[in-house]
Amino acid sequence: MHTPLLNKLRLPAALGSLSYRDMEALAAEIREVLINTVSQTGGHLASNLGVVELTLAMHRCFDSPKDRFVFDVGHQAYTHKILTGRLKNFGTLRQTDGLSGFCRPDESPHDIFSTGHAGSAVSAAMGLVEADRVQGNAKPYTVVVVGDGALTGGMVYEGLNNNVKGRGRRLIVILNENEMSINQNVGALAKYLAELRAKPTYQRVKQETKETLQKIPLLGEPTAVGISHVKSSIKNWLYRSTWFEDMGFYYIGPIDGHNLPTLVRALGSAKWLSRPVLIHVHTTKGKGYHPAEKDPSGFHGIGRFDLETGEPATSETGFSAAFGQKLCAIAARKSNVCAITAAMSLGTGLTEFAARFPGRFFDVGIAEEHAVTFAGGLAKNGMIPVFAVYSTFLQRCYDQIWHDVALQGQKVIFAVDRAGFVGGDGESHQGIYDVAMLAGIPGLEIWSPSSYTQLSQTLDYAVDEAKSSVCIRYPRACEPPVPAVEADTEHKTFYCIGDADAPVLLVTYGRLVTEARQAVDALDKQGIRVRVLQLNRILPIDPQAVQLASDYARVFFFEEGVRTGGVAERFGAALLEFGYRGRYSIHAVEGGFVPQADAATLLARHGLDAGAMLAQLTMNNGQ
Amino acid sequence: MHTPLLNKLRLPAALGSLSYRDMEALAAEIREVLINTVSQTGGHLASNLGVVELTLAMHRCFDSPKDRFVFDVGHQAYTHKILTGRLKNFGTLRQTDGLSGFCRPDESPHDIFSTGHAGSAVSAAMGLVEADRVQGNAKPYTVVVVGDGALTGGMVYEGLNNNVKGRGRRLIVILNENEMSINQNVGALAKYLAELRAKPTYQRVKQETKETLQKIPLLGEPTAVGISHVKSSIKNWLYRSTWFEDMGFYYIGPIDGHNLPTLVRALGSAKWLSRPVLIHVHTTKGKGYHPAEKDPSGFHGIGRFDLETGEPATSETGFSAAFGQKLCAIAARKSNVCAITAAMSLGTGLTEFAARFPGRFFDVGIAEEHAVTFAGGLAKNGMIPVFAVYSTFLQRCYDQIWHDVALQGQKVIFAVDRAGFVGGDGESHQGIYDVAMLAGIPGLEIWSPSSYTQLSQTLDYAVDEAKSSVCIRYPRACEPPVPAVEADTEHKTFYCIGDADAPVLLVTYGRLVTEARQAVDALDKQGIRVRVLQLNRILPIDPQAVQLASDYARVFFFEEGVRTGGVAERFGAALLEFGYRGRYSIHAVEGGFVPQADAATLLARHGLDAGAMLAQLTMNNGQ
Repeated sequence: MHTPLLNKLRLPAALGSLSYRDMEALAAEIREVLINTVSQTGGHLASNLGVVELTLAMHRCFDSPKDRFVFDVGHQAYTHKILTGRLKNFGTLRQTDGLSGFCRPDESPHDIFSTGHAGSAVSAAMGLVEADRVQGNAKPYTVVVVGDGALTGGMVYEGLNNNVKGRGRRLIVILNENEMSINQNVGALAKYLAELRAKPTYQRVKQETKETLQKIPLLGEPTAVGISHVKSSIKNWLYRSTWFEDMGFYYIGPIDGHNLPTLVRALGSAKWLSRPVLIHVHTTKGKGYHPAEKDPSGFHGIGRFDLETGEPATSETGFSAAFGQKLCAIAARKSNVCAITAAMSLGTGLTEFAARFPGRFFDVGIAEEHAVTFAGGLAKNGMIPVFAVYSTFLQRCYDQIWHDVALQGQKVIFAVDRAGFVGGDGESHQGIYDVAMLAGIPGLEIWSPSSYTQLSQTLDYAVDEAKSSVCIRYPRACEPPVPAVEADTEHKTFYCIGDADAPVLLVTYGRLVTEARQAVDALDKQGIRVRVLQLNRILPIDPQAVQLASDYARVFFFEEGVRTGGVAERFGAALLEFGYRGRYSIHAVEGGFVPQADAATLLARHGLDAGAMLAQLTMNNGQ
Repeated sequence: MHTPLLNKLRLPAALGSLSYRDMEALAAEIREVLINTVSQTGGHLASNLGVVELTLAMHRCFDSPKDRFVFDVGHQAYTHKILTGRLKNFGTLRQTDGLSGFCRPDESPHDIFSTGHAGSAVSAAMGLVEADRVQGNAKPYTVVVVGDGALTGGMVYEGLNNNVKGRGRRLIVILNENEMSINQNVGALAKYLAELRAKPTYQRVKQETKETLQKIPLLGEPTAVGISHVKSSIKNWLYRSTWFEDMGFYYIGPIDGHNLPTLVRALGSAKWLSRPVLIHVHTTKGKGYHPAEKDPSGFHGIGRFDLETGEPATSETGFSAAFGQKLCAIAARKSNVCAITAAMSLGTGLTEFAARFPGRFFDVGIAEEHAVTFAGGLAKNGMIPVFAVYSTFLQRCYDQIWHDVALQGQKVIFAVDRAGFVGGDGESHQGIYDVAMLAGIPGLEIWSPSSYTQLSQTLDYAVDEAKSSVCIRYPRACEPPVPAVEADTEHKTFYCIGDADAPVLLVTYGRLVTEARQAVDALDKQGIRVRVLQLNRILPIDPQAVQLASDYARVFFFEEGVRTGGVAERFGAALLEFGYRGRYSIHAVEGGFVPQADAATLLARHGLDAGAMLAQLTMNNGQ
């Protein structure tokens, strides 16, 4: 990579005095770094290519970290990372022990919050601003970058709505509209933003930008006259959005998010206004890399890919694809089955469903709460809704599962993707909390199939037989090369593998079944006999599984999930109540949040892979 | 009560042909029933007094249950209940085994959803409507009633935003604006609604209503001309709200929610429009009862009160008040302590705090998600935020506690009120899920004090000593007459009561400590010696408490919370892992959702009161 400016300049400070020509050259270098790196590491390419100029303008106009940048989700902060001392390590992006693909305060003081979930930035920033006021601190600027996708979620709205006391506060919200969240954006507000952009004013602005900008005072020349002049200038040359002004924000926009002078002027104007401002910036997702511009959904969060063609280095199939195919087959035979996604149709394997059954496919935007309650309404009126969602985002709708599905006695099927360790996305995306979170909700079943066959059987069961709501959770992975259970033609709540007369029982579920099989095979070669109990249904636990386990002198429970509130605790308590007098040990995820690393590494680190099982069972055997 | 029309008429059918004069007389009768009943039963008075005319107009214009009424929260559905066959039982409102204070499908086919939490109605209704479309059903009307308070929450916004495909769907959203949710309403949208109301148009409408209404075709005379005429008429006489129209709704309003002819015409017009309509109705909370009109917050959710004066029959003090007083004392000595409420300052005991420390008091509206993330931002910037919230509403912000507090390593204090059984509010408000829900969140401490002293000590500990976030949960109750622990001058994670050499240990926490003491005293008289272990900190469990318990041959755990995912399971698993070989039994809440009844009744029904403990320990002693 040829990056002379990045190598030479002292960033971000040097940006303050850089010519626009040099800034543009810098933007080109950054794009080269982004494309080359993400082709190797995987990551969020399209969104980062879209905000190169915006990020440069932000670092030119504000003094980070004194002024604070709060990136919503944080998946668009790569340029910010490159500009704030992380260029050298940028090749470690999303790798084990490398740079995070999101913001992390422990990486840099320029990252204010650990992020990963959409919609929190406005609320968090408002907390920073109010704390300044209460404590009588100096008043730095707090600049939020939020995508139009996040605006399909209610949390951003709650934050904006709470801005009514905000006059005089130095809060600047940059709405980065790229007509995409992850898939194409949905909802009334997206339509509204498109209408704003379509106004003739916007086209005119682009031609007249240069002339009009002359009228706005330069940074560093603050006068009362200047400020009022800014206000009226902005009013004149930009469209007025009643929507955001009704929410208490001074609205500037829409402006071209790839035009550096325009961006710098708009940010400068927002500084002078000294009240909450919303700047509506229009950017092109994937800007500067043709394959990503052409298919921004495909390049939202990707694995490694070929630089020339943009083709992924590995084809993402796995459980998500198996789920999507099976759901299509079910929908073909059952006309009341429908699918819901919160802006994740590609990631959850629903692309084919969306194409084949458009009338029964609902992409509600990044609005998990609405998704679940909407599903409750559909179920009430005769449908069988299937909500496909990542484990980590299921966390966003606990109350809706509880209040609008379980309390109603309705049947909704939750296809919980990315259960267990997720790899490069790191702490904010680990799927190891859902089981503990859902434990207390009455009437919910949780299943954790470990093969495509079991997944398929469980989906059939959920649609055809289950009386209440069913969560089916599976990892971001392909089926293991050996089937998890040899004879799984029958759909059962649990399966047993290995020697029935063994003195030791290993209990586990999901992806760990494969690890357990490997461990047991290795132990067998050492003459140590172990039986494996695979729980297919993990909530409620089948009492027969507990009874079976109580026959063993020694029971090990391995769980790819948090220990506290997990299945292993529940199983242990049930054993004890059943009168078990043997030895029991829990091996699960402990010790706080889990940073990024590939799944194999994380399984090993947390003592959950075949090797760790082998060590535990060898060490403890016969004790 | 003199209610000749209520007694005589066949309701709701008779409403269709009733004169407006008779409807007004009926409204007066209903108000008499409401005031008299709620003075005896407690309940939501002010909100129900506000929607008497609206509910009458709805039942006149629509054919429930064929047409569907979805009441958001459902706390305003008393008139609806009276009109749909529940007058005779209305005196049992909120009583054990009586009528619910919210909507319940098992009470009547006119109640579509079980409700209690705010903001879900639009999403749920949209599910009903879409299910009609997919299945090719007949297209009844679906009418949502939602308060302006709920509009401070993001979920209603998510629902409205997802309406973009809604043309041709028979969805009518009635926004009942009474400038109050529970406390005075907050936020930018509330301000916007007030501005709508203040438009000169609204005043003019009231004078010209009669004349203008003549121009709108009567129900039952549908013509193409008529419909377009309706549209232009409404446009002319009502203010245009770009906000709701940007969200894809045809806007009608604001109209006087106590004027029956206006209401009937507006609803009739909405029917003819045959597309999603939002009707903005302005009502007076507490209408018709002077004490409630004067103090609608005080009459939002109340206990029994004196009919003449409006004074509550019992003074509500208890743990909420003790918390509020203590927090004021802490705030007085510590300037970075602040308080947050989601529209519940009165219920959570924060009224004095709000008055004494207005700059550090934040009422964010019914926006629990924002509340928590905002708290995370405050904490990040040096504050110690205390979010006071009911257990049942804490469910609405799982992901925010996880993502914006715990993941950030920030310290936020959660004062979790209404923990345990809540009494009259019933299934949707039981505080028995929070412990299980929060179990898996890393770094969170949960404390469950059982006396004011312990509550006070725990608050001091949380503010002064704790390094991570702390949840402090306490019941809707007064401190028991005997202190829960005799010598609790020192703040500890657990306490022991009773005979140290007893063979049997009873483990419990929170309110049940009092029950356990009573049981132990009674057992003592029978010569049965039992020791009580009170867990003050319930997450994480102190390993010393487990070690202590392992010395007893028989351990009973009583828990006022759901069994699955609760503390008793965790304690049992820890005992087993510790090598415990004795007998263990869990006594907690099992078997689905818990309907309304006073706390004493519920404790008895779930085997958690002193009597049940006595029975269990007598029966099992020595086994």
